[in-house]
Amino acid sequence: MEIEQFKNHTSSQFNKDMDELRGKLLMMGGQVELQIENAGKAFMQTDIELAEQVLQQEAVINQLELDIDRECVEILAKRQPIAIDLRLVLAAIHIIRDLERIADEASRVAKMAIHIQENESLIKSKQYYEIQHLVTLVQAMLHQALDAFARLELDTVITIRNEDINVDREYGSIVRQLVARMMEDPRNVRRALDVLWTVRSLERIGDHVCNICEHVIYVVKGEDVRHVSQEELAKRALGW
Amino acid sequence: MEIEQFKNHTSSQFNKDMDELRGKLLMMGGQVELQIENAGKAFMQTDIELAEQVLQQEAVINQLELDIDRECVEILAKRQPIAIDLRLVLAAIHIIRDLERIADEASRVAKMAIHIQENESLIKSKQYYEIQHLVTLVQAMLHQALDAFARLELDTVITIRNEDINVDREYGSIVRQLVARMMEDPRNVRRALDVLWTVRSLERIGDHVCNICEHVIYVVKGEDVRHVSQEELAKRALGW
Repeated sequence: MEIEQFKNHTSSQFNKDMDELRGKLLMMGGQVELQIENAGKAFMQTDIELAEQVLQQEAVINQLELDIDRECVEILAKRQPIAIDLRLVLAAIHIIRDLERIADEASRVAKMAIHIQENESLIKSKQYYEIQHLVTLVQAMLHQALDAFARLELDTVITIRNEDINVDREYGSIVRQLVARMMEDPRNVRRALDVLWTVRSLERIGDHVCNICEHVIYVVKGEDVRHVSQEELAKRALGW
Repeated sequence: MEIEQFKNHTSSQFNKDMDELRGKLLMMGGQVELQIENAGKAFMQTDIELAEQVLQQEAVINQLELDIDRECVEILAKRQPIAIDLRLVLAAIHIIRDLERIADEASRVAKMAIHIQENESLIKSKQYYEIQHLVTLVQAMLHQALDAFARLELDTVITIRNEDINVDREYGSIVRQLVARMMEDPRNVRRALDVLWTVRSLERIGDHVCNICEHVIYVVKGEDVRHVSQEELAKRALGW
């Protein structure tokens, strides 16, 4: 099995490069996970200091993206990998881009936390638990996706896609409530829009995690499953 | 000059592959441009038939993305390009992804055109000309960016980034007007939100076009200019 060969690579400079690449990507992923968690906390608790910390950390993540991307290009130019090694490098190029965009969305959430500081805190508001849940959901999805990448195992990718369907559903429900609040009282409009942009960012994080899953499937199976339905994905990626 | 060498490649299978790749990417770009134009028209004139056409065309563009991506991977695996050739293939992989996302945003605009069909037409409304202008702006930006890719010339990329600043400004102005309308009368909320999502999609198209410009700079200069300021970009990419 190609995938087994990959996992049992004998020690050479090339394999060291590949291991280092995977390690760095996972490190970046861990930092992005933390950004989601902190941005969520900052928003829920209107914690300006934590929000500022998220915004400062964004530059570190941007730099990680550039560094890992450069390493990928070097591997392509110097090592000219083929088969699963080539797929892994190409997937890494895509995944770090998705990770950087997830971090961007987390920064948007953090900015909103700063923006709304003058207004009343979200705590005790109706949407509090729902948004909290959304943050927990997308953070867990990212964790699972990175774990799938680390193990090059596909057992959880369908679950992650299902979780994203839940994210979309909860997002829709929160949006409907916000629209109702805006229609009830025009004084709610600005505040509701701030929350709307924030839940929109969380929903987009879910989409990026799904992209990461598609890239993991591409590495393991060599199948490009972008734009395929959930059923087709299960069939083509997992042979269900 | 590396770039001159690239342009004067002698005829070989490899060069044919590269020319074909560039040609296909530009063809896909042209189709995406048309999607923006048609989605804009469909939205402005509540033309359901045209909106449906945009949605049907989305599958064609998705397929083009997959086809071109596969060709890029084949070139990497079989030809193991280096230097500018490698950069061009990697940039192509990124650019087709941005093009596909631009098409996604165009589809969102088309869906909104269908969604609002029951309500009054946008024609004669205050935002009509502003949204029209936004559509024209982002479409022209994409056209220029694809032209820069076709010619591998950087003379217009700074202009395109400046255009995007205009897009962001006009987007901000429309959003403020929409918020004011919502606060004036709660009956405007739903309709204003529909327009809000649409201008948001147009604003995001501008961002994706800027990404495409960054990839063109990467091909020509070998410089990764993601996350750099406008001034730094002019300096590093154009030597200003």
